[in-house]
Amino acid sequence: MLKEPPKNSREKTKNLLLTLQDKICSGLENVDGKGKFTEESWLRDEGGGGRSRVLKNGAIFEQAGVNFSEVQGKELPQSIITQRPEAKGHEWFATGTSMVLHPKNPYIPTVHLNYRYFEAGPVWWFGGGADLTPFYPYLSDIRNFHNEHKKACEKVDQDLHKVFKPWCDEYFFLKHRNESRGIGGIFYDYQDGSGKIYRGNNQNGEASKASQNIGRSNLDWDNLFSLAENCGQAFLPSYLPIIEKRASQTYSSKEREFQLYRRGRYVEFNLVWDRGTIFGLQTNGRTESILMSLPPLARWEYGYKAKKNSREEFLTSVFTKPQDWLNDKELEKFCLDNNIFD
Amino acid sequence: MLKEPPKNSREKTKNLLLTLQDKICSGLENVDGKGKFTEESWLRDEGGGGRSRVLKNGAIFEQAGVNFSEVQGKELPQSIITQRPEAKGHEWFATGTSMVLHPKNPYIPTVHLNYRYFEAGPVWWFGGGADLTPFYPYLSDIRNFHNEHKKACEKVDQDLHKVFKPWCDEYFFLKHRNESRGIGGIFYDYQDGSGKIYRGNNQNGEASKASQNIGRSNLDWDNLFSLAENCGQAFLPSYLPIIEKRASQTYSSKEREFQLYRRGRYVEFNLVWDRGTIFGLQTNGRTESILMSLPPLARWEYGYKAKKNSREEFLTSVFTKPQDWLNDKELEKFCLDNNIFD
Repeated sequence: MLKEPPKNSREKTKNLLLTLQDKICSGLENVDGKGKFTEESWLRDEGGGGRSRVLKNGAIFEQAGVNFSEVQGKELPQSIITQRPEAKGHEWFATGTSMVLHPKNPYIPTVHLNYRYFEAGPVWWFGGGADLTPFYPYLSDIRNFHNEHKKACEKVDQDLHKVFKPWCDEYFFLKHRNESRGIGGIFYDYQDGSGKIYRGNNQNGEASKASQNIGRSNLDWDNLFSLAENCGQAFLPSYLPIIEKRASQTYSSKEREFQLYRRGRYVEFNLVWDRGTIFGLQTNGRTESILMSLPPLARWEYGYKAKKNSREEFLTSVFTKPQDWLNDKELEKFCLDNNIFD
Repeated sequence: MLKEPPKNSREKTKNLLLTLQDKICSGLENVDGKGKFTEESWLRDEGGGGRSRVLKNGAIFEQAGVNFSEVQGKELPQSIITQRPEAKGHEWFATGTSMVLHPKNPYIPTVHLNYRYFEAGPVWWFGGGADLTPFYPYLSDIRNFHNEHKKACEKVDQDLHKVFKPWCDEYFFLKHRNESRGIGGIFYDYQDGSGKIYRGNNQNGEASKASQNIGRSNLDWDNLFSLAENCGQAFLPSYLPIIEKRASQTYSSKEREFQLYRRGRYVEFNLVWDRGTIFGLQTNGRTESILMSLPPLARWEYGYKAKKNSREEFLTSVFTKPQDWLNDKELEKFCLDNNIFD
């Protein structure tokens, strides 16, 4: 049996995630300087609702979507019951904040964040993470993103980042392209303080490879709450410095075309592999909010091949593979040599 | 037990589908006048290979992809075994030609075609169809498309079109949008002359709704071969007249933007619902050939709403629903009244 969550667990997580939405939106409006979020509140027939916010055609962001939702239902879908059989037959509660930013400038990475909390009968769990998808990556940007999230995890437990970083690499992976979606970040799921980290299985039902990496994980509810709080708060400092550095870099249609091409991969991941998206679409979720993650413009090109030793080639030969971004000295040298460190 | 296919069944279907690819490509080059197909042949590690052809930036076609493939394997994936349990444990053979055309002019519909043949141990079957996805539909175009395919089916059996038309409506449906992909056409699968038409189950494992419509279907191998041949040959006369009529219609960025927006739906269908695409991507298919169906450019827009009584609104209020295009008099009147008949 799991330890029971505090009496006000739903209220507390809901407020945490609402506040996170507010802080992120205000930070993004601030850095954008031009675009403003418009808000749409919605109710779900089966219970609960949400607050969808979108900023379109900003100075920095071509589109930024930040959603909050808090929903209830009678029974979780089979895909989740398989992972958490104790939830079977119980009503459930779920609250989450998720965000996808599509900047205009190809030198500024696309980025995704999601933190969520579930309760279903005797079980409850936290999940979430953030990951970065650059088109023209710089190692110092990548390091800043990873460092901020590492610090946030380590404030709660020294060993967590060692687990959550490879978990992210595994999750955001396009098997049909043999490519990572981007340079990763952190990801965790099924965190319930039961003394072991529940790892998700991949779509073929195989246990996740990084299971061996699992460190100490018997965090209690309060610590897991702090983890979500810390990681959520880490987002702006992990990302805004990248914008500040790259927003003034000029680009031509070549970089723009490549960005649109790579956005196609983002669509492929979200529609083919992302459990949350597929689950939402197949279970009568709010389609417009779910698909707010898709880019405002994307393109596909049959047989595209990047030029040898180009930045475009480096993206797939070096950056869409799991790497030890923070410590790998060879990688650092490669980036310095190719003028893509800073 | 099924009747055995003729000794040269693989050779015969392969040649049929290779010829179909040739005829379609030459018909399309001819109408385009500018674009030429480039060809790429490929081999598959596990056996077989294909011939992918793509035409980019033509006068009519922004992108046209026509693929032929002929592949073998040791065991069919579980999703097909569930439909055809007799195939379990047997080597299999599959050959198919598939096509997706993305025209530039928003007045010319996107269109898809696929004909295929399988053998696996004691079982064999034919499948295929063609369906049209207009952005600014005209009823006369829709009728021409349906009429040509109806005639092709009826040459083989009077009752087939009554089954294959609703089957198409069911298959090309975006449940998460509650919209048909387009105005349909024909679709059939698991045709093996066994006296009943095997209908696919939907993704929730429920039997297809149109099962009640099933007409006579104990066609033998030769008749099913003719069916594929007739339907394949029906494609050019079903589609080229639409091009000839619409290619000279001028459009502005408004129509172009709407086309790109609706192409997003095409991406959503193919990546979320299309069994063939998902199957291919999850089983080590040739990704570039499979995803040749995706549009060269597409866009998403959160919360898009068409203006009341606009052509854009008609698309979803009238045309992305299953309709009796050939006979519905009310629909005909609606199209005449709104100047979208011819």
